[in-house]
Amino acid sequence: MLPYKTLFFIDKQGAIPIYQQVAERLIRLIQEGRLPPGAFLPSTRELSAILELHRKTVVAAYEELARQDWIQTVPRKGVMVSPNLPVIKPRSFHGGEGTGAFGGKAGFVFPHTAMQPPPFLPKAGHRVVLNDGFPDSRESPLPLLLRECRRLTTGKAYAKKLMYGASSGTEHLRDALATHLAGTRGLAIKPDNLMVTRGAQMALYLAAALLIRPGDKVMIGSPNYYFANLTFEQLGATLVRIPVDDQGIDVQAMGAILKKETIRMLYVIPHHHHPTTVTLSAERRMHLLELIREHNLAVIEDDYDYDFHYASAPILPLASGDHKGNVIYIGSMTKSLALSLRIGFMVATADFIVETARLRRIMDLRGDNIMEEALAALLDSGDVDRHLKKTNKLYRERRDLFCSLLDEKMSDLITFKKPDGGMAVWATFPPGYSIEALSQRASALGLLISDGAAYRQPGMKVFGIRLGFASVDEAETREAIKLLRKAADA
Amino acid sequence: MLPYKTLFFIDKQGAIPIYQQVAERLIRLIQEGRLPPGAFLPSTRELSAILELHRKTVVAAYEELARQDWIQTVPRKGVMVSPNLPVIKPRSFHGGEGTGAFGGKAGFVFPHTAMQPPPFLPKAGHRVVLNDGFPDSRESPLPLLLRECRRLTTGKAYAKKLMYGASSGTEHLRDALATHLAGTRGLAIKPDNLMVTRGAQMALYLAAALLIRPGDKVMIGSPNYYFANLTFEQLGATLVRIPVDDQGIDVQAMGAILKKETIRMLYVIPHHHHPTTVTLSAERRMHLLELIREHNLAVIEDDYDYDFHYASAPILPLASGDHKGNVIYIGSMTKSLALSLRIGFMVATADFIVETARLRRIMDLRGDNIMEEALAALLDSGDVDRHLKKTNKLYRERRDLFCSLLDEKMSDLITFKKPDGGMAVWATFPPGYSIEALSQRASALGLLISDGAAYRQPGMKVFGIRLGFASVDEAETREAIKLLRKAADA
Repeated sequence: MLPYKTLFFIDKQGAIPIYQQVAERLIRLIQEGRLPPGAFLPSTRELSAILELHRKTVVAAYEELARQDWIQTVPRKGVMVSPNLPVIKPRSFHGGEGTGAFGGKAGFVFPHTAMQPPPFLPKAGHRVVLNDGFPDSRESPLPLLLRECRRLTTGKAYAKKLMYGASSGTEHLRDALATHLAGTRGLAIKPDNLMVTRGAQMALYLAAALLIRPGDKVMIGSPNYYFANLTFEQLGATLVRIPVDDQGIDVQAMGAILKKETIRMLYVIPHHHHPTTVTLSAERRMHLLELIREHNLAVIEDDYDYDFHYASAPILPLASGDHKGNVIYIGSMTKSLALSLRIGFMVATADFIVETARLRRIMDLRGDNIMEEALAALLDSGDVDRHLKKTNKLYRERRDLFCSLLDEKMSDLITFKKPDGGMAVWATFPPGYSIEALSQRASALGLLISDGAAYRQPGMKVFGIRLGFASVDEAETREAIKLLRKAADA
Repeated sequence: MLPYKTLFFIDKQGAIPIYQQVAERLIRLIQEGRLPPGAFLPSTRELSAILELHRKTVVAAYEELARQDWIQTVPRKGVMVSPNLPVIKPRSFHGGEGTGAFGGKAGFVFPHTAMQPPPFLPKAGHRVVLNDGFPDSRESPLPLLLRECRRLTTGKAYAKKLMYGASSGTEHLRDALATHLAGTRGLAIKPDNLMVTRGAQMALYLAAALLIRPGDKVMIGSPNYYFANLTFEQLGATLVRIPVDDQGIDVQAMGAILKKETIRMLYVIPHHHHPTTVTLSAERRMHLLELIREHNLAVIEDDYDYDFHYASAPILPLASGDHKGNVIYIGSMTKSLALSLRIGFMVATADFIVETARLRRIMDLRGDNIMEEALAALLDSGDVDRHLKKTNKLYRERRDLFCSLLDEKMSDLITFKKPDGGMAVWATFPPGYSIEALSQRASALGLLISDGAAYRQPGMKVFGIRLGFASVDEAETREAIKLLRKAADA
């Protein structure tokens, strides 16, 4: 007989009924080959004595096993492991609990995705964080959103309607967002030109996944938003890099390439380019629209930062110009409202939206209906507009302070242009300077900044990092610059 | 001079400052070629008179245009459209507002994704809905979750930590979920065997996207979960269909195929198979584990319905057996808790989780940190266990009532086996019977049921629909069966 006493670990305080624990343990013994097909189990009287359990518990466990066809009763002989089960050679008799099938590496072979930098996560010792350019979560209207969620889930509409939903977003949010985008960005769109996604990243992935086949050429800026490059490479694209200078991406260079090569798609960030914060000049913008029309060039226009502008009115997106249905415009409410609120959007011709919505349904069914409806309510009530107005003022002040301190304390080391908008400064360093070492010294002092690895891309002449100013208040800003100076001098 | 009066539509009550509206309109006129490079604009005095605006407003608009490089001032001559802009041939002079670039079809060519049935959405006239097998949203613990969210977002941790996050889920939720899955499913796993996703569908897509390359063969049951088939086909897989009978998927047939062909992956639903609700027999389960080990066969085990079982204890997943790291186990908290809460999970070896987490970051960055932390808190407090206990009892009663009424009133037309668990009955009809016509007649009477289109798949001998019983209370169940009878007789 097996050493049942040592093979069983019964948790009498646990949530799982004891009979079920016994049954599961016996199944495991059968599956591992320790109780082979045709073997006899101890009688319920014996096993209950061994395990010091009530006999009824063991009876219930055996009944469970019989119901699941693991065992059968042989009249006058006892209870036997089903003889039609396959015979398994026992592996190890002293494996303890579990077979540890998940403990090692996968048995099958799988391809490896592109390496990525570790997520930017503050650790215990970090007193101040200068992130990539995120909003200040202390200012977020999340309490308002949660209040709306509560209101929605206690109403009758929830049970009736909100549990279902379309993969392109709730009707109400698409209506409200179409109005918002028309009003703020001059886009002449209807709700069927719009898909609500989890965030701008999902919109980017969906559009790219529909367009790119392995080997396709995709034009991007150099440097470019790091996760966009990863997305295109993951989908098998060959990247064609176009220089970005102080007027934005070089449209003339783009035109020369379009004359010679078949380009599947262009990815462009005309407004507050990432990472450099440069805005595409009016002249290049118009040239670009010409190229788009002439070549029927599919364009993903990433406008992640539109809602934040300080010097002047924001530049209207390419999507508001005459692009003959070739621009796919993506953006996000995540930066505008709250980082933990992951709601983005894609604007395109209705036929393209239908296709990407089908793909989205396969990837993710649909979004968070409740949160989408809550956001729609805040757009309708004007709360979103008020929040944007308030944070624009706040972030402009923070930019001014940050840039003046950076200028005053760090100008020997850091070169930068005060950005017109957005939430970060593009800070460049002298050739050969080790940003990585600076980042490490800063981290030891309690300041978390990027090490610049994600921004180093082929064809770049200057190296820099983004220093986000929007999420630090005055005291934190002063502390951050003090620590940065100290790290530079260390 | 252009007919400025008719070309401008100023919204004096709107959220956008009037000067900005004027600037945007002028930019559009430049972009459309109506104001060509080198053309002179009216003076600010003239334009303000024409548009009946304060002169300062027009001055501000011109300043904005100059800042954006659209115009320049020529001393003693006036304000001119920048001469270095490209010349555009005006398209139509009477286009009204907007160029309608999004109004037509996309200019570029794009492939089309698989056609999908329309989402299952109740309309105004529907009094009762028998869905695919969803929980009752009136029973959902969403208020508890939202209370937790509120608590989290008012705490200090939010600003410090919750705005960032790993793409595989928050640490706290991965810990709590690993404990929950170990306790309920006998899985010997650590948090690094786990990724939190938006829902089971995203886990399915991620695993499949990493494994499948166009042309790869994927084994599935026939019939099979519809959205799984769509996912594999979208990724370019060739589907190899294995019959599902009353013991589950035919493992012997699978073995014969594995001997002859290279199979990239198996997708299997051993517990409450979708759509048929059949559970894989113990014998086949063990044979299947043998095949998996022998061939190092990558397996996605979809266990969407584990938490709901009425007749006996749930069958332990394949993932709890000895599969040598070949099983990728996916499931969801969406069905268990609330349909609008989209949180699912993937369990696999740590190396596979690392890769899929990289892919997830490209697709969707990360999940909803706040909601993930809220769920972790409810797992810790035992609220999730209590909720599952309560709803299991409720849904068992609903199953019993539903099945007895179905038996009593519909047995001339509908064949079914009372399911051991889950939230739906697999109802089959006599050959040649039009389920679509029945669904339409039912809809006209106020009952929404599936038309069966999604369940009709190649190689099927019986045709049926899933009738969800969990989301209808006693009165609704009686009403639903009454209407179904009426629709059948009409």
